[in-house]
Amino acid sequence: MRCKRCRSKPVVLKLPRHHTALCADCFDHYVIDQVGRAIRHYRMFRREEPVLVAVSGGKDSLGLWDLLDRMGYRTTGVHVQQGIDGYSRDSETTTRAFAEARRLPLVVHDLAREYGGGVTAMAEASRRSACSACGTVKRYAFNTIGRELGFHVVATGHNLDDEAARLLGNLLHWQVDYLSKQSPALPSSHAKLVRKVKPLFRLTEREMAAYAVLRKIEYVIDECPMSHDANSLQYKAALNQLEQHSPGTKQFFYLEFLRRQPLAGVGAAAEEVVLNECVRCGEPTTGTLCGHCRVVEPLRQARPAETVRQHEGPPAASVAPMVVDWDS
Amino acid sequence: MRCKRCRSKPVVLKLPRHHTALCADCFDHYVIDQVGRAIRHYRMFRREEPVLVAVSGGKDSLGLWDLLDRMGYRTTGVHVQQGIDGYSRDSETTTRAFAEARRLPLVVHDLAREYGGGVTAMAEASRRSACSACGTVKRYAFNTIGRELGFHVVATGHNLDDEAARLLGNLLHWQVDYLSKQSPALPSSHAKLVRKVKPLFRLTEREMAAYAVLRKIEYVIDECPMSHDANSLQYKAALNQLEQHSPGTKQFFYLEFLRRQPLAGVGAAAEEVVLNECVRCGEPTTGTLCGHCRVVEPLRQARPAETVRQHEGPPAASVAPMVVDWDS
Repeated sequence: MRCKRCRSKPVVLKLPRHHTALCADCFDHYVIDQVGRAIRHYRMFRREEPVLVAVSGGKDSLGLWDLLDRMGYRTTGVHVQQGIDGYSRDSETTTRAFAEARRLPLVVHDLAREYGGGVTAMAEASRRSACSACGTVKRYAFNTIGRELGFHVVATGHNLDDEAARLLGNLLHWQVDYLSKQSPALPSSHAKLVRKVKPLFRLTEREMAAYAVLRKIEYVIDECPMSHDANSLQYKAALNQLEQHSPGTKQFFYLEFLRRQPLAGVGAAAEEVVLNECVRCGEPTTGTLCGHCRVVEPLRQARPAETVRQHEGPPAASVAPMVVDWDS
Repeated sequence: MRCKRCRSKPVVLKLPRHHTALCADCFDHYVIDQVGRAIRHYRMFRREEPVLVAVSGGKDSLGLWDLLDRMGYRTTGVHVQQGIDGYSRDSETTTRAFAEARRLPLVVHDLAREYGGGVTAMAEASRRSACSACGTVKRYAFNTIGRELGFHVVATGHNLDDEAARLLGNLLHWQVDYLSKQSPALPSSHAKLVRKVKPLFRLTEREMAAYAVLRKIEYVIDECPMSHDANSLQYKAALNQLEQHSPGTKQFFYLEFLRRQPLAGVGAAAEEVVLNECVRCGEPTTGTLCGHCRVVEPLRQARPAETVRQHEGPPAASVAPMVVDWDS
């Protein structure tokens, strides 16, 4: 089959929701175009503004970093080493290799070195699910590291499938308070909070996988071993089933939701939420002790990080000049 | 396994969303209790009020009729013969047999005798989907027949799966105007419109199938042959998948939606929609020609019903004294 855009080269991917099928070159053009539209529409960042890219080592975040770099943005990666057996070491190695090969600056933040244990230990000590503990600590890390390094914006690799699944979950449970946080661009609502943007929200998981393959990006294929039962995977499966029957369902569901929300672009008025400073760490929180401290304090009390650092020493992976270990 | 309620008889059905498993007697008690709660909470009808029950011949509508009769309500059935090859004749025969065996009054309305053709012909002539044409004509029939026979309320067999699937479809397409019509009890908004109620909205499809089997109700098992690709079946499948992973999802999704809507009980103020009278048939409509007339007029013009009646003669099925053929 020939590409429906250039009508000459062979098709690499069908895009049923756009009623098209594209060759490698036209698909590449399409991906860059979708990311460009996302950035411009939500004024995610300006051309010269340095962007901190949260990278896990998966196809989405490495694909995003690759795209922003190709599009000429000044990017730095930040990787959180979660301390999950096997998986996290692979993720760190893959991320470091990506950064080194392209000479892109990368900050690695090792949870076990900082707190005396990884996500699994934190989840156990704080009696949370691993996904909840991980999300809380990662968001905290991206914000504090970003701010301390002088970034005003952090970009994450959330794609259309992620956002549609999250929206479905929020609606199934009528968590309407969360809906306003579902914008691809969350403005800073406090001097200590950096903006959060999701430039891949117009692209599906399948498209990002194809992009990574076509760009020969080495990425960690395995899903996180802690997430095999995560609700988000169930919502994605349900939406994929509906998408197969009726292409475009997922995109309409999320993009029409956004169209009906007031444009929550950068610079828009922040929500009227009173933010205090956490009594433990001083970071913004709606309560007195922030979510991050509620997750990490039980572990810190059980296993002081200093002891662990002493035993563990520096990470095994070689550190390129461009890679900074945040915790050493 | 022993019933979790009476702790003596063997379990016939597990109800994971209620964390229970019941024997035949306790399940029967549970079903009647759920229907009673639905009727009372939405004040669907009073004890002495005659209720017209829309019956297709499937497990839900025959189960509903059986339940209301057992609970002591004064019921009359109304069956629309859609003229779909094989399926509709089976449905009519099954419904008549149910009514005759219990000496319950039944009105049969034959679309082909009234309009010169069944749902398939109507859909073709009006260029609608069969499901859309069928729904429009059935709702019209239930209302006009109900009103002409002096009923103030029509009950349909929509269950929790039907309502949750409809809600999901409306949210996936952001048809927010339809959300207010998703109440299990729609008050009359015009002198010519009867109330519509759904006493089974707290019970799942699986529970209604079990009820029909336990009550030895002979019902048409096949889904309508026109609906095999219907979106509603896709939404149901997606919700069932989520329900299996997380029991209670479906119930919370729909019941919490209702809890957040203002109680649209009978007697509540009707919505502010201006209703005109259809220029063709005089029934209430928001436009000038009602949906029913838009569906049936193209067919009526092509095949006058009188001609067809003459050729067809009375239906083959025997007519019990309690059964009225609406169109003869």
